[in-house]
Amino acid sequence: MEITAQQLAIVVHGTVDGDGSTVISNYAKIEEAEPGCITFLANPKYTHYIYTTKASAVLVRKDFKPEHPIKATLIRVEDPYETIADLLNFVNSQRPQKKGIEQPCYISEGVAVPDDAYVGAFAYIGKDVKLGKNVKIYPNVYVGDDVVLGDDVILYPGVKIYHGCKIGNRCIVQGGATIGGDGFGFAPRPDGTYEKISQIGIVILEDDVEIGANTTIDRATMGATVVHRGVKLDNLIQVAHNVEIGENTVMAAQVGIAGSTKIGKNNMIGGQVGFAGHITVGDQNGIGAQSGVPNNVGSKQKLLGAPAINAREFARQQFYFKYLPEMFNDIKALKKQIEELKK
Amino acid sequence: MEITAQQLAIVVHGTVDGDGSTVISNYAKIEEAEPGCITFLANPKYTHYIYTTKASAVLVRKDFKPEHPIKATLIRVEDPYETIADLLNFVNSQRPQKKGIEQPCYISEGVAVPDDAYVGAFAYIGKDVKLGKNVKIYPNVYVGDDVVLGDDVILYPGVKIYHGCKIGNRCIVQGGATIGGDGFGFAPRPDGTYEKISQIGIVILEDDVEIGANTTIDRATMGATVVHRGVKLDNLIQVAHNVEIGENTVMAAQVGIAGSTKIGKNNMIGGQVGFAGHITVGDQNGIGAQSGVPNNVGSKQKLLGAPAINAREFARQQFYFKYLPEMFNDIKALKKQIEELKK
Amino acid sequence: MEITAQQLAIVVHGTVDGDGSTVISNYAKIEEAEPGCITFLANPKYTHYIYTTKASAVLVRKDFKPEHPIKATLIRVEDPYETIADLLNFVNSQRPQKKGIEQPCYISEGVAVPDDAYVGAFAYIGKDVKLGKNVKIYPNVYVGDDVVLGDDVILYPGVKIYHGCKIGNRCIVQGGATIGGDGFGFAPRPDGTYEKISQIGIVILEDDVEIGANTTIDRATMGATVVHRGVKLDNLIQVAHNVEIGENTVMAAQVGIAGSTKIGKNNMIGGQVGFAGHITVGDQNGIGAQSGVPNNVGSKQKLLGAPAINAREFARQQFYFKYLPEMFNDIKALKKQIEELKK
Repeated sequence: MEITAQQLAIVVHGTVDGDGSTVISNYAKIEEAEPGCITFLANPKYTHYIYTTKASAVLVRKDFKPEHPIKATLIRVEDPYETIADLLNFVNSQRPQKKGIEQPCYISEGVAVPDDAYVGAFAYIGKDVKLGKNVKIYPNVYVGDDVVLGDDVILYPGVKIYHGCKIGNRCIVQGGATIGGDGFGFAPRPDGTYEKISQIGIVILEDDVEIGANTTIDRATMGATVVHRGVKLDNLIQVAHNVEIGENTVMAAQVGIAGSTKIGKNNMIGGQVGFAGHITVGDQNGIGAQSGVPNNVGSKQKLLGAPAINAREFARQQFYFKYLPEMFNDIKALKKQIEELKK
Repeated sequence: MEITAQQLAIVVHGTVDGDGSTVISNYAKIEEAEPGCITFLANPKYTHYIYTTKASAVLVRKDFKPEHPIKATLIRVEDPYETIADLLNFVNSQRPQKKGIEQPCYISEGVAVPDDAYVGAFAYIGKDVKLGKNVKIYPNVYVGDDVVLGDDVILYPGVKIYHGCKIGNRCIVQGGATIGGDGFGFAPRPDGTYEKISQIGIVILEDDVEIGANTTIDRATMGATVVHRGVKLDNLIQVAHNVEIGENTVMAAQVGIAGSTKIGKNNMIGGQVGFAGHITVGDQNGIGAQSGVPNNVGSKQKLLGAPAINAREFARQQFYFKYLPEMFNDIKALKKQIEELKK
Repeated sequence: MEITAQQLAIVVHGTVDGDGSTVISNYAKIEEAEPGCITFLANPKYTHYIYTTKASAVLVRKDFKPEHPIKATLIRVEDPYETIADLLNFVNSQRPQKKGIEQPCYISEGVAVPDDAYVGAFAYIGKDVKLGKNVKIYPNVYVGDDVVLGDDVILYPGVKIYHGCKIGNRCIVQGGATIGGDGFGFAPRPDGTYEKISQIGIVILEDDVEIGANTTIDRATMGATVVHRGVKLDNLIQVAHNVEIGENTVMAAQVGIAGSTKIGKNNMIGGQVGFAGHITVGDQNGIGAQSGVPNNVGSKQKLLGAPAINAREFARQQFYFKYLPEMFNDIKALKKQIEELKK
């Protein structure tokens, strides 16, 4: 992509302040931008960066008033963050959309493929599968028997959806994700071996869910593992059987959730966090990366650490951790002094 | 599934105590069950839940004597836990079993496919592969040259078994698992670059092993990475080259085991645990989630933390952690007081 | 493989010291070797093992002088470590090399397949893909539109390369890895839902990079996620959008790197380490397993812990951790004693 600031301003219904002929070929955060980049200023907290950024152009609010000279060309718009998102979506929409059925693929008899669908080569569609309008099933995808895919679902290459699972409208599943594998359920026998417990439930992804690459979501023992509307899961996340994740909760990569745990709405979970099984987590919590959550959590909390506690309290305890050796020696010295005082 | 308590009692050779016409359509743990669910009471520790459970029916031991009134219908059986497992297995067995060869698939010349096998579309079977009776190879599975699959092996969609690996009888590999990828072996050169060391060993899964979705088990540098009989590995686990995992050891999701480590029998390992390379872990240990195991471990231990120590000792240290800031201030105050006392 | 020490010595241009007829059938580290194994001694630190090793043969430096009797046959060479690597490479090279195009596969019109390439069955090659000399594309691999594969690239079964990504010469990608999936970018809407931000960038793997099984590398929002020359990533690693990893950096399994973080050259990163987003890590650091890196890191440091600090300092603090309960009680006692002294 190469475009001038002036051309871009026309696309985004903005006005140019500065050199309209500057050429933009890339995007970056304001503090990291290099020449040739466009960036944006939405959060007032970052305002100071605009005076030092190396970006060639910056999207700013219509009413932004600089307090110092700025090198970059400004493009004034209603909402800079939304504009950047729109811009990327616009560029993306220019790519040719996949359509039609590539051969060879395997579509079970009787499955209706909507006219506007894409079924890539080596995609497998099992018996009694229902396909929504405009689904895109990339090559090497497996869709098991009785699966339901809503409208506008995208399954990227190598996705596996086991039998019976339900995928809501506009869900996106990135490559290699495995949805509906058997839950990890085994009954110990007296001789130390284990008997597999059949996992006869399913996985339900409600509408507008996105699942990251190589993430795994296990089917329920009975009933359903449920990922509610609007949830976004990053790559390599483990969601065990009978887990439930509430609306609009967002999780960074490599999080693990053990069996039957219920997580509420609008939580933000950092990378590599682990949740114990059979616990309940409320709504609107922020849980920092690598935390371990062993017990129930309320709502609107900021947690950190393993075991996870109030983030501020964690920071406080952590702060004193480095004084441990010194404290140890101080206590030793104090003991000695007191012994002497006693004499 | 919809069935009355009375009908169910007949199937499981039990007797009904209460309303036999109550309809059951789901399964849940006793403390989480909703109306319409069946649950079970096996562990006496959970007995108190039976008086408050919302389950419609509870499987209990033949000789169970309630001490308070119970709302749920009781179904009395010899062994409630086994009955639940049997029940799920029964329901599961009602699903039609996959059989036959779907086209197109790729079966190398000379490979004998047993009559009762399933080979899904887009499955790849390399040269000189040996297939046991009743193997089920789902679509998009890769079975490399010289691989041996025992009887009743199930390879779910997207499983990849590299050349030469041996999979024992009744092994189940969930979707997307990669078995036999190159071990992570590189020799540093003086200029800071690395030379790849060929990995000419294999992976052996003995009988009755289950491997979770998207788990990775690397082939040995030479010799074999061995997963012994009855081991159950959850999803997204990393097993490095030349690792050995003893019989009936069970590991939760996202565990990582570095190269050449030997883990004994009947261990229970929590999620996200990490094992250093070249260490030896004994038998029957319980290692808590997110622990880090840097050194050899004996047997029959309960460990927790990173570095992992005795779980009780870990809890004790952790308990005092929160007093650190207070202790720091106490020491400061004590110093002052002693200075004053000295005067 | 079965070979005598004498035969081996000829292959590796070495000389035999001891029983040349001893048969070698396996390889192991010197401290773990069993009879029948060959091993090597390169690091003087391990010299004491040579007197007790059960290995049948040991590769040693030409000028090695034993101080005690040694049971094993010695094979004297210039550089024992290099020789072992060469040996494994030699054995590996004896395996028949994959060549030619297996059917059915999907190769888009106009894509030129070099004569010496391997394209396995069910491999998918999109539009305008460029294939270097001697590429090996295993079965069930997906290569999206406009992808460029350099010379001698190996893509193992089930690898997925999304459109537009660039894979350098001699890169090896192990089975199931997903390269170029959408970065995890979402804009929060006022109602708590999220809008997907299109990810229009790519992934670049420079020359001589190896990517482990089921690892995920996300495409950039704009621009490129870049893995520089000679980097080796183990299995199940997460590399987020716009990350950059410097030359010859090596990472063990299950590491996670959040968005836009820049990691320098020749670092060695242990398993399960997590890096926060938008940070910068210098060169030649060693970061221990399970560490959490929340902030910028300089160069040539040894770090450990979460948050990661100087490894020696971490060990020191950790050492005193176990005295916490004792320290707590000491302080209590000291307080009491001072109160008494005051009276």
